[in-house]
Amino acid sequence: MKVFFGSPGNISGLLLRIGQCFFAAASIGVMVSAHGFYTSTAFCYLIASMGLEFLWSFGLACLDFHALRSKRSLQNPVLVSLFVVGDWVTATLSLAGACSSAGVAVLFSRDLGYCSKTFPCTRFQIGVAFAFISWFLLAISSLVMFWLLGAV
Amino acid sequence: MKVFFGSPGNISGLLLRIGQCFFAAASIGVMVSAHGFYTSTAFCYLIASMGLEFLWSFGLACLDFHALRSKRSLQNPVLVSLFVVGDWVTATLSLAGACSSAGVAVLFSRDLGYCSKTFPCTRFQIGVAFAFISWFLLAISSLVMFWLLGAV
Repeated sequence: MKVFFGSPGNISGLLLRIGQCFFAAASIGVMVSAHGFYTSTAFCYLIASMGLEFLWSFGLACLDFHALRSKRSLQNPVLVSLFVVGDWVTATLSLAGACSSAGVAVLFSRDLGYCSKTFPCTRFQIGVAFAFISWFLLAISSLVMFWLLGAV
Repeated sequence: MKVFFGSPGNISGLLLRIGQCFFAAASIGVMVSAHGFYTSTAFCYLIASMGLEFLWSFGLACLDFHALRSKRSLQNPVLVSLFVVGDWVTATLSLAGACSSAGVAVLFSRDLGYCSKTFPCTRFQIGVAFAFISWFLLAISSLVMFWLLGAV
C-alpha cells in the first residue's frame, strides 16, 4: 500500500475533501444570494454541479474520517476504482459548470455591460472563483486517485 | 512496451489525433463564419483554445505518422511524460473553451432569446458541438497517455 499526498484514509486526503466541501458550499451560497442568478441556465447548472460536488466530497470526507479513526486502509482496487470514476465524473461536471458560468459572467460584465446594483456581477464572479478553487482541489484528488489505481 | 488503443506510434493513436485536428478545425471554421461571434469573449476564447488543440494534435499526428513509417517506438518515459502534460493542459483548456461557449450559446438562444437571422445561434451551437467532440477525442488520448505513464 503506497501513501501519497491526498490518498484516501490519510489526513491530507481528508483536508482536501473538507476544502472541496467548503468552497462548493461557499460557491452555492454566494450564487443563490445574488439577485437574478436564475436568469441564466449556466448559473443554475453551476449550483447543481456544486451541489453534486459537495455531496460527493462530504461522503468521502466522512469515509476518510472513519478510516482515520478506526485506522483502516481504504486502498483496495475495487474501492479505488470507484473513487476514480466518481472523482473524474464530478471533476469534469464541476469544471463544466465553472467554465460555463465564467463565460456568462464575463459576457454580462465585459461584453454586454449588464451589471448594475440590481444585477450584481461581482457576486457572480466571486461564486465562479469559489467554484474554480473547489474544482482545483477536486482535480488534485482525482489525479492522486488515478495514479493510485495504477500503483495498487 | 505495452500497446494500448490510442497509444503513441500506433495506428489508433494516429486516427485519434486526426479526428481531434478535424473537429477542432471544423469548430474554428463554423465559429468564424458565424456573424457576430466577436461580441462574446467566450467565443473568441473557444477559437483560441481550438487553435491550440489543432496545433498540438497536428504536431503529434505528424510524430505518430513518422513513427509508423520508420517503425520506431515513441514509448520512452521522458517522451510520454511530455505527451501527458501537453495532453492534459490542452484538454483542460479545450473543455473550458467549449463549456464557456456552451453557457453563452444557451444564454443567447434560450434565456435571452437574442437569436435572429443576423445573429445565427445555430452556428454557435454547431461550433460548440464540434468543440465538445474534439475535446472528447483528446480526453481519450489523455487518459491513455496517463495510464501509459504508470505502465512505462
